[in-house]
Amino acid sequence: MNLFYAPGAVSHQHYSLPDSELHHLHVLRMSVGDEVKVFDGLGNLFLARIDALDKRQALIFVADVLQSGALNKPGLHLAIAPPKNIERFEWFAEKACEIGVDVITPIICKHSERKELRADRIEKVLLAACKQSLKYKIPTLRPITSFENFVQQPTQALKFIAWCADEQVHLKDVCTPRQDVLVLIGPEGDFDSAEVKQAIQNGFNTVTLGSSRLRLETAGIFVSCIFNLNNQ
Amino acid sequence: MNLFYAPGAVSHQHYSLPDSELHHLHVLRMSVGDEVKVFDGLGNLFLARIDALDKRQALIFVADVLQSGALNKPGLHLAIAPPKNIERFEWFAEKACEIGVDVITPIICKHSERKELRADRIEKVLLAACKQSLKYKIPTLRPITSFENFVQQPTQALKFIAWCADEQVHLKDVCTPRQDVLVLIGPEGDFDSAEVKQAIQNGFNTVTLGSSRLRLETAGIFVSCIFNLNNQ
Repeated sequence: MNLFYAPGAVSHQHYSLPDSELHHLHVLRMSVGDEVKVFDGLGNLFLARIDALDKRQALIFVADVLQSGALNKPGLHLAIAPPKNIERFEWFAEKACEIGVDVITPIICKHSERKELRADRIEKVLLAACKQSLKYKIPTLRPITSFENFVQQPTQALKFIAWCADEQVHLKDVCTPRQDVLVLIGPEGDFDSAEVKQAIQNGFNTVTLGSSRLRLETAGIFVSCIFNLNNQ
Repeated sequence: MNLFYAPGAVSHQHYSLPDSELHHLHVLRMSVGDEVKVFDGLGNLFLARIDALDKRQALIFVADVLQSGALNKPGLHLAIAPPKNIERFEWFAEKACEIGVDVITPIICKHSERKELRADRIEKVLLAACKQSLKYKIPTLRPITSFENFVQQPTQALKFIAWCADEQVHLKDVCTPRQDVLVLIGPEGDFDSAEVKQAIQNGFNTVTLGSSRLRLETAGIFVSCIFNLNNQ
């Protein structure tokens, strides 16, 4: 059964699907009376029926809750400096979403070449990845922020900074299961040593991702894999 | 110091760099007497000096061995059905190379939409990824082959088939460290049940990659991560 995005949908209610989904309904030649699955992006999945459909709107009746948003699941927050080539960041967002990430914060570091980001493009990628991988909770994309501001924000999560230096402890050995985790990943050219110092002062622990030299988008995916494997 | 590819280079020898690398030398405005690092793609890294350079050739003198190909390291062999969209396979090849893979065999399965592959394109991606991630051994890309022929080939590796079915054991729990591992990854639409049966008859064990529904290229990268983490 086809899956549609219905932000703000609440069980047992009449609901008008957003325009992007309306187009999708027409492409699939669906009609009144057809059953569809809809998700609200917060982890909830519903069974619904198309009640009215024309070129301008699609009304559905939300008949049943198929799955409720899982509460108290540990979450992964990746704060990552977007690369110069934005396609690499889109690819990271798609893969991290498939494997599992809860919050993504793009950060601007001293060595960052990219200092802005079109959030709507990344949000589109995240929504498509959720539909494809049947994840009903869309990762939150936070506004791009400076490294300095970001590391000072309070959080209950375990805090790590992935840094390309020798003799670090490996993330896999300290990323405890059933705990919220926040990992900082630096730009091409890595973090500046003053940034690493500042992170440590704010309670971050330095970690390595092993002996392979990974591109930053690969590092982000690798961290998602470690978190996924630790919480299977 | 810049890194160049010198297939067949042997220590203490005069050597002519391939044309692709000649172009690279000119772009970097290098000249006679400059020192360069060269690798042979088999795991060996050498220190060399440019002895002669013009538009048609670059002669180097290989002065020293900096690193010898690691022997007896466990290897990961991924046999994977290439997706319809070849860019997704190129991404997979790049990322698997960064994270760690030794052999890639593209396979043709019953549900495969893609039945051919331009090996030269993938080899180019693998070489670029090796240079970027400072890996001196280029993964071997084997010729595309049918699933049926492939699963009958003898190997000393632990053999797994990743299959989207419930109640499988997770690859991470059976992918023993310090062992060669071979993992089969199916096409969009997964393996046919007859293929799974045939794999089992040939000594493969079915495994899951967890509860997330992964695209096939993501599954390939995920397996590389598991192998990497198990052999840190």
